Amino acid sequence: MEPDNLNKEQDQNSWAVNAWTLLSKLRDQSPLIQCITNFVSMDLMANTLLSAGASPAMIHSIEEIQDFTPHVHALCINVGTLSPAWLPAMREAAQVVNKAGKPWVLDPVAAGASSFRLKACLELVGLKPSVIRGNGSEIIALSKASIGATKGVDSSHESMDAMEAAKSLAQSSGAIVAVSGAVDIITDGHRAVGAHNGVSMMQKITATGCAVTALIAAFVAVDPLHALEATASALSIFGIAGEMGMAMAKGPASLRMHLIDSLYNLDQAAVSSRLKVTSL
Amino acid sequence: MEPDNLNKEQDQNSWAVNAWTLLSKLRDQSPLIQCITNFVSMDLMANTLLSAGASPAMIHSIEEIQDFTPHVHALCINVGTLSPAWLPAMREAAQVVNKAGKPWVLDPVAAGASSFRLKACLELVGLKPSVIRGNGSEIIALSKASIGATKGVDSSHESMDAMEAAKSLAQSSGAIVAVSGAVDIITDGHRAVGAHNGVSMMQKITATGCAVTALIAAFVAVDPLHALEATASALSIFGIAGEMGMAMAKGPASLRMHLIDSLYNLDQAAVSSRLKVTSL
Amino acid sequence: MEPDNLNKEQDQNSWAVNAWTLLSKLRDQSPLIQCITNFVSMDLMANTLLSAGASPAMIHSIEEIQDFTPHVHALCINVGTLSPAWLPAMREAAQVVNKAGKPWVLDPVAAGASSFRLKACLELVGLKPSVIRGNGSEIIALSKASIGATKGVDSSHESMDAMEAAKSLAQSSGAIVAVSGAVDIITDGHRAVGAHNGVSMMQKITATGCAVTALIAAFVAVDPLHALEATASALSIFGIAGEMGMAMAKGPASLRMHLIDSLYNLDQAAVSSRLKVTSL
Repeated sequence: MEPDNLNKEQDQNSWAVNAWTLLSKLRDQSPLIQCITNFVSMDLMANTLLSAGASPAMIHSIEEIQDFTPHVHALCINVGTLSPAWLPAMREAAQVVNKAGKPWVLDPVAAGASSFRLKACLELVGLKPSVIRGNGSEIIALSKASIGATKGVDSSHESMDAMEAAKSLAQSSGAIVAVSGAVDIITDGHRAVGAHNGVSMMQKITATGCAVTALIAAFVAVDPLHALEATASALSIFGIAGEMGMAMAKGPASLRMHLIDSLYNLDQAAVSSRLKVTSL
Repeated sequence: MEPDNLNKEQDQNSWAVNAWTLLSKLRDQSPLIQCITNFVSMDLMANTLLSAGASPAMIHSIEEIQDFTPHVHALCINVGTLSPAWLPAMREAAQVVNKAGKPWVLDPVAAGASSFRLKACLELVGLKPSVIRGNGSEIIALSKASIGATKGVDSSHESMDAMEAAKSLAQSSGAIVAVSGAVDIITDGHRAVGAHNGVSMMQKITATGCAVTALIAAFVAVDPLHALEATASALSIFGIAGEMGMAMAKGPASLRMHLIDSLYNLDQAAVSSRLKVTSL
Repeated sequence: MEPDNLNKEQDQNSWAVNAWTLLSKLRDQSPLIQCITNFVSMDLMANTLLSAGASPAMIHSIEEIQDFTPHVHALCINVGTLSPAWLPAMREAAQVVNKAGKPWVLDPVAAGASSFRLKACLELVGLKPSVIRGNGSEIIALSKASIGATKGVDSSHESMDAMEAAKSLAQSSGAIVAVSGAVDIITDGHRAVGAHNGVSMMQKITATGCAVTALIAAFVAVDPLHALEATASALSIFGIAGEMGMAMAKGPASLRMHLIDSLYNLDQAAVSSRLKVTSL
């Protein structure tokens, strides 16, 4: 084998070992993940976290933040069905976890759909999320701070086109930025890696994007000092569960079921043989 | 074959051809369907739209209507878990799509359950929906403008009993009115057709009625000038997916999964051989 | 067979006969169960009720309570995603069913997570629920009226440890108190029984606790004068459905599906051979 290929294989292997280590830690530690998320995603998000071994808490009332949020290991904020009444709790929860030195992850769903939503997302970006995950349209909207022809919550930009936007947003925000697409991009503004696992039918299941953002929060909770690696690992693990689910699925609804079952059952052999992360 | 039977068969065939054409258009065009709907139905509704090929957007905040709603291809309003705070956005979204010449569909869930709900539904009916779909109890409540012994969201009137109410409501509102039941009725106030596909176990899955209303919105989005035909087609396609799902199901939860998978995989042969629409 | 064992077997048998009788009544009468519940659980709760034969109504707006709630056969209140705006409707609905002499059931989700939540739960306890069902942490928080290191909505106390708290809460509130755990405890403050059915993987599915609380409401609706027996029966029936689902499941998501299918299909033979309730 040529040295270059050998290095790539070693790299691949070390990504797989790390992803497996993080998933094992997650299963052992069962971190408490607070999710302030949209109504559509709550069921799948909670079930994704449970299947991965985390402990979800869907608590969003501002009256509870000061008592409850200091105990969480990570926070996931998702603006999918945003209304003004929810913003103060999002803000306060982000501040509480920041103060406690815990990570939080932002999912700027449909960031470019309206000026209200864009403004809210930009404000949340200013509250220093550890990770921001969106599709190409969402990351571009945030990066350019402009609303545009976003097509609902689906991506109308290929993820590779969003690379520049992602790097720029990562640099300006200080967050790890992940862009979902045929190949997921994960960048800290300088370095960028691609996570290749997953199947396209996952886009035909509502809230899979939201669910993987919550999974990122759980992975970052168990390795907060390496948020880029934790993010790439979460995306890879979810993608692998999707691939394994796809082998049994007959359509989007059975894929959803088999994906969650596969995430629950995922073993080291599957992670080792399937995980593909590359430098971009 | 007798001429009468031949005509019926040709009719049946043209309904099947039309339904298949609309589903194909839907898959090609992936219309953006805004859903302002109840909390219970959001997951199934979004997944139904995705599986049919549409692009769902569950956006309900009044702050976003002016920016977002002009871009949608149809709107679905469902009052299932109505509270007063949601009404202004429903009102405004209906007005925006009306102004843009786009269709919108109303699901008056449990219209007769309270005077608050009935009043809200009647106000929405006044905002000129293209289609209203409900069960017999709901359509009767709207038609008579009276609350009554509605048994939750289940129908306690057979759909045939609701024929007069449906015609009357269609005439007074200008909307196509669809009544779900053993045979679904679709009427413009003069002409009425029956859609016969579907299985009774679908009533044991929450939000199937809500989901098919959203599917009607997607079908009307791709053929807004023939709302009666689009409505009958959507009901038939959903019913066929239910029949095909039923062949694999062991109960309501597996039926839900197989129904969505079947909707995703539906081909012309199944539509041709199964679709049954009759004049009433 | 020794006399003691014979008595135990007869006891077991009478529990099974009673549980089957109640399930049969539920399927025949299809009681209308109003659920004021959290966003995460709405889908599974409604589907659980439908599969058991009840008629769910997810109606929570205070504007509707006076018109609608007098018609329900039981009420389920769940504080999972509580915010202050929901409390007045919960209060009023509880009062309306109390006045009508109908039962209501409280699920104090994460009661100890914040002082806001604890105070709300304690106020609801004061409104005389027929049954309170929670996990060990929740029942202890209510019994001690103190917030504590509750780990999200998962239980961090074994149910047996919660026995004293359950008895104390039952005595002070007048409610039947049920504590979910490896063995579910059901007590009226004096007598206590254990319901042994169920599988541990049910804890890996979000909202199974919420769903079984709604099922308790449905069982108590058909036998309001024997709330302890109805509660133990509902927990047993749900647990049996879980066991039967588990035989077909490959993970939490397929368990969820098979559990609901099994609940729908449950027959007397399965109830007779599997049900296990013991005196504690």
